Amino acid sequence: MKLLLALFAVGLGSMYAEAQSPVSAVTPAMTATANQLLASARQDNQGYELVRSLTTEVGPRLAGTEAEARARQWAVEKLQVLGLQNVRVEPFQVPVWLRGVELGEIVSPFPQSLTITALGGSSSTGKQGAEAEVVVFDSLSALQHASRIQVEGKIVFIDEVMVRSRDGAGYGLAVQKRLATAYVSEQLGAVAALIRSVGTSSHRFAHTGQMRQAGADAEVGVPMAALAAPDADQLKRALGYGKPVTVKLVITPQRLPPASSGNVIGEIVGREAPQEIVLVGAHLDSWDLGTGAVDDGAGIGIVLGAAKLIMQQLPQGPRRTIRVVLFGAEEVGTVGAKAYAREHAAELPDHIVATESDFGSGDIWRFDSRVEEEKLLQMAAIAKVLEPLGIARGNNTARGGPDLKYLREMGVPIVSLLQDGQDYFDFHHTADDTFDKIAPRALDQNVAAYAAFMYLVAETTAEFR
Amino acid sequence: MKLLLALFAVGLGSMYAEAQSPVSAVTPAMTATANQLLASARQDNQGYELVRSLTTEVGPRLAGTEAEARARQWAVEKLQVLGLQNVRVEPFQVPVWLRGVELGEIVSPFPQSLTITALGGSSSTGKQGAEAEVVVFDSLSALQHASRIQVEGKIVFIDEVMVRSRDGAGYGLAVQKRLATAYVSEQLGAVAALIRSVGTSSHRFAHTGQMRQAGADAEVGVPMAALAAPDADQLKRALGYGKPVTVKLVITPQRLPPASSGNVIGEIVGREAPQEIVLVGAHLDSWDLGTGAVDDGAGIGIVLGAAKLIMQQLPQGPRRTIRVVLFGAEEVGTVGAKAYAREHAAELPDHIVATESDFGSGDIWRFDSRVEEEKLLQMAAIAKVLEPLGIARGNNTARGGPDLKYLREMGVPIVSLLQDGQDYFDFHHTADDTFDKIAPRALDQNVAAYAAFMYLVAETTAEFR
Repeated sequence: MKLLLALFAVGLGSMYAEAQSPVSAVTPAMTATANQLLASARQDNQGYELVRSLTTEVGPRLAGTEAEARARQWAVEKLQVLGLQNVRVEPFQVPVWLRGVELGEIVSPFPQSLTITALGGSSSTGKQGAEAEVVVFDSLSALQHASRIQVEGKIVFIDEVMVRSRDGAGYGLAVQKRLATAYVSEQLGAVAALIRSVGTSSHRFAHTGQMRQAGADAEVGVPMAALAAPDADQLKRALGYGKPVTVKLVITPQRLPPASSGNVIGEIVGREAPQEIVLVGAHLDSWDLGTGAVDDGAGIGIVLGAAKLIMQQLPQGPRRTIRVVLFGAEEVGTVGAKAYAREHAAELPDHIVATESDFGSGDIWRFDSRVEEEKLLQMAAIAKVLEPLGIARGNNTARGGPDLKYLREMGVPIVSLLQDGQDYFDFHHTADDTFDKIAPRALDQNVAAYAAFMYLVAETTAEFR
Repeated sequence: MKLLLALFAVGLGSMYAEAQSPVSAVTPAMTATANQLLASARQDNQGYELVRSLTTEVGPRLAGTEAEARARQWAVEKLQVLGLQNVRVEPFQVPVWLRGVELGEIVSPFPQSLTITALGGSSSTGKQGAEAEVVVFDSLSALQHASRIQVEGKIVFIDEVMVRSRDGAGYGLAVQKRLATAYVSEQLGAVAALIRSVGTSSHRFAHTGQMRQAGADAEVGVPMAALAAPDADQLKRALGYGKPVTVKLVITPQRLPPASSGNVIGEIVGREAPQEIVLVGAHLDSWDLGTGAVDDGAGIGIVLGAAKLIMQQLPQGPRRTIRVVLFGAEEVGTVGAKAYAREHAAELPDHIVATESDFGSGDIWRFDSRVEEEKLLQMAAIAKVLEPLGIARGNNTARGGPDLKYLREMGVPIVSLLQDGQDYFDFHHTADDTFDKIAPRALDQNVAAYAAFMYLVAETTAEFR
């Protein structure tokens, strides 16, 4: 209710908010500067160019690998060229999991191959593979209610479809399936598990993603792979004949000893309040199947493109420090985010606000926040400046990106610039996540929004908690 | 000009044609029966169901393999169940080529994997692979004009884009590239060749298809693979940095001794002129990557679905024999078509007309023919009956499907019921050619058109040559 009133007040215009408070979040001069940034973004395709560069020169960059190290080197160079200060890598260790052979087939009654991919952290079937009759469930919940006699000695197949939506609402449920199936299947005596790919692609791409629960022993849980949607359809059709269907699965991923990863950080040091930090994040690592363009090359391009605009377009830097954090090892359990929260625990009270771009390259359509309720008018005044981009003020339950989880839990105010994700899960975590899937104009809109937002929260004297 | 006049005459209505000729191609009673078939097709999804059955129960069915033999068995059973007569397999031998390992990678300067697939008939790089600097050409023609010094010791990359069109017009040119590149590359001293995938998919699917020229020795021509479109983009971007780009390619396909293939044939024997043959074809084999739904499960479903309607809806069979020919080994060089033309040479003068469905499952939008000019009015009268389906009369230079090449050259009249192929090459010859890509309503329209057409040409007393 308070939120509704606040939104109503915003509806009266930011002039009202300014009249009410001697210290408005946004002065007319700030609005003018922000509008300059918005205009500049339309004439600059630097964000798009950065995604091109990262996805071409580095390509896939799985956490803990030599490729992720190359991505860090790429990021350090880019931050330095853009002129950011205090450019550094903050290293940490990460468990390494490498994909091996991936073969799936229906052995009987209709022999043919199946398109599969191992889920991140899965155990191995060994080279000899796992071959068994398939038992199908409509959902994780149905598996959880199954009896051992139904499942023992079989390959579990969870055939649950993820729903397409603008905000990616179906993903949370789908991730539950990915995180629990191997363990529940093992408890019921299964030899392996298959899930219909998380995601919304109708094409023949299997969708990877982390299945290993944080801290879970690498040998626990049956080997687990995702079937491409057409292959899940096919397996379901084969099962529809009412006779036993036998599948063979060979996945041979390896766990290697922990290796180096790191967060790459650069700053636009504040001219008046350098200790006050506006954190803007994205993640540098990607899954190994594609080149990590929508996830999260786009986010890298957006935040670096926005930082570039601020560096080049403003006569002087903003009052507060803008800290760009390019997280490592997000995909394998937000390991970089944990390291950041740990290393910077003492500084977190000085984090004014944090935001992350990690939902592809679709247009931003909504501005959500998570601030103290009495600060809502201040945040609304900032959101108002982004309205010309088609960005509506949303709610005050922002979650930020995945790398903001620990900061959010520690009370750091959060903003989410929500992107249109209708097609995000058509590409995310598949081999089809490649540079051609990035829409240049939408990326420009994102860069504009981030640049204006970063400038405003770094320039304002307002606090959000 | 004669054609234009003929079409103008058709514009005056088929009544005019009937008034002109004592023996019209289509009587009012025939039109009424054809309309019954059109109406029935809308209430029967048998064509769709047959595609489902073939692509599920058999799946991929590469020429000369055990899977193609299972497809023949499937077809014989279906033809028998439909009640066709003289159901038989006419066997022939076909060279067998089996795909092996398929790995591509940029070795330097930007190490990462590339999505590739070997082209049909390609020689092998051996397990050690071929690794060399890449030399790029915009077209086959540019390669043909290159000098040995440009190409020797390198991997050729032809980066030619195929254009999307309703009639698939770009495919002919693309096939030239596929058929010539390995040989021209070898003459110029290259170690291997890559082409941007034939096809229009923007997704990460490499497109296979026959590269081996008929009769060419299996050891001639460098190993040759297609890059998925995003990977061709990526390689081109990497080359754009102006430094040498080294690629490694491992493809290990094998040539096996010739094995059995066959054409599956069934007939609706004519009640009055059984020796006169209306040939309706599709091909039973498919490439190995997908399950052969659009190519050519759809065609199989369409012609069998149409045959079923004629068997079940007509009080008596048509005057002439309808011969359904499900060709084997089309993909590897229309081997089944050659065998048919050879085995049935003596009968070809009695082939009244031939048609083939081999362009996916899009709506039929045009009726082309290849008949004697003085028979154009007769054919136009038949085409007229299909107009309510949205099918316009086209030209008289029909080519029919690929399996009709030899019949066409021997003077058999041809009809092409042209399908909308805007998206056909998004799926064709890729792993993404799966059952979910079939549009049920469009398939019904195809079945309707084929049923009415087959009935009319088998019932009429008109000749077309």
